Amino acid sequence: MVNRLSEGQLAEFDENGFLVVPDVLGTAEVAALGAEAEALYGTDSPRRTFEADGRTVRAVHGCHQIPGGFADLVTDARLLVPARQIVGGDVYVHQSKINAKRALSGDIWPWHQDFTFWNREDGMAEPRVVNVALFLDAATDHNGPLLLIPGSHLVAGTETVRPGKKAEKESWQAHLAADLEYTVSRESVARLSASADIVSALGGAGSLLFFDSRIVHGSGSNMSPADRRMAIFTYNSVDNVPGAVAAPRPDFLAARDHSPLQVTR
Amino acid sequence: MVNRLSEGQLAEFDENGFLVVPDVLGTAEVAALGAEAEALYGTDSPRRTFEADGRTVRAVHGCHQIPGGFADLVTDARLLVPARQIVGGDVYVHQSKINAKRALSGDIWPWHQDFTFWNREDGMAEPRVVNVALFLDAATDHNGPLLLIPGSHLVAGTETVRPGKKAEKESWQAHLAADLEYTVSRESVARLSASADIVSALGGAGSLLFFDSRIVHGSGSNMSPADRRMAIFTYNSVDNVPGAVAAPRPDFLAARDHSPLQVTR
Repeated sequence: MVNRLSEGQLAEFDENGFLVVPDVLGTAEVAALGAEAEALYGTDSPRRTFEADGRTVRAVHGCHQIPGGFADLVTDARLLVPARQIVGGDVYVHQSKINAKRALSGDIWPWHQDFTFWNREDGMAEPRVVNVALFLDAATDHNGPLLLIPGSHLVAGTETVRPGKKAEKESWQAHLAADLEYTVSRESVARLSASADIVSALGGAGSLLFFDSRIVHGSGSNMSPADRRMAIFTYNSVDNVPGAVAAPRPDFLAARDHSPLQVTR
Repeated sequence: MVNRLSEGQLAEFDENGFLVVPDVLGTAEVAALGAEAEALYGTDSPRRTFEADGRTVRAVHGCHQIPGGFADLVTDARLLVPARQIVGGDVYVHQSKINAKRALSGDIWPWHQDFTFWNREDGMAEPRVVNVALFLDAATDHNGPLLLIPGSHLVAGTETVRPGKKAEKESWQAHLAADLEYTVSRESVARLSASADIVSALGGAGSLLFFDSRIVHGSGSNMSPADRRMAIFTYNSVDNVPGAVAAPRPDFLAARDHSPLQVTR
């Protein structure tokens, strides 16, 4: 079963909180998805968010809900089988996005833990959920690669701070601007990175990055003349469907379809 | 003569436009200079500039004009002898600064060429001038190291753009917190970095980086929990003293003392 992660890979994921698997998708597949991403970036929609300049696309959300290559990808064995292995059983997609990180303009994502958002905003009870990221472009040291602190998913006491931008916009939009609603405190980043050196998730286009919902991660500015686009699919256990919350976020941020996914290709 | 650059080092500088020499200053020396830098960062003065937040110090200019360790350093053989070798003969300091690049807040410096500023703003005629940078902290892949495009100092036709004038066309420049007056165009960065991979100037505290006034360089955000401070001294040939300009910049940006420097220690 070529799509299955090995015991060694699963052990690496458990220990570090992330795993890079190079060259999973082929060049033509990635190019086609990249073209779809550009079409979505160019389509006016509340799914789109922007950099601080108000013009440069930062991300498009809910890409798995739009018929096309990204929707097909979530039931592709190369993503779904490992996601089921990691989560343990049936999964659905809680959230998806295509981050743009544009050449010479993609701004930072401050250090954060994804689970904080899904827990506090969406009512997700447990971290029985995994991110599968597809590199649409090569990630290098100079184009703002995803940065992770190995093992930070298992460390207790990581402090969340709230920069306090929420009042300025619709609440769900505030979570997605460069000033994230929930970030990890400076002290926690210092403590965690003193124990384990920060790692850049590097790799060619078509590589996959699996990462734990609790791992502390972020990314720097893109100083290169090439985009660094990345599609991220968040697979949640069907036994971990969020409960009711007072102010539900839109479906493209917290999906209402909790049907277990079956491999289709 | 331990302070002299070798023929090999000079050849490397000429070809690449930069040269890193590790571990030139000792730990105690660097710690003392770091403490002086902190005192300057904390002193209200027009020499200080700030990040976009208006309170995080970005740099202090003219540090060689303030009695203390930085003033002493410009006539230290370890900096002055190589500077004289590169420029060819007597030199003085045209400009100096201590960049702060603070932990988790230091913002980017867009791609630029220093000589553009000294030529257009200060009336400096020729690039007979060299930067000597002292790492006050280790420079790593994650704390916004100086990025350089090797060989770019020798390439003709690099296009300078003025973000203030082109904000409507070049959104990446409009959004940058670091609003430099003269930056290198997106097209030129793409062309230059297609011929030579971008290099990060990495090294421990106490290392020196020599770089050409025409080399295309910049730096990304500092995503690490540690500062990445760097003092930069610009040694200009005494035969290349700037002429008169209509609107001279302050002495701490374009020094009026053109006396040739002698090694004092």
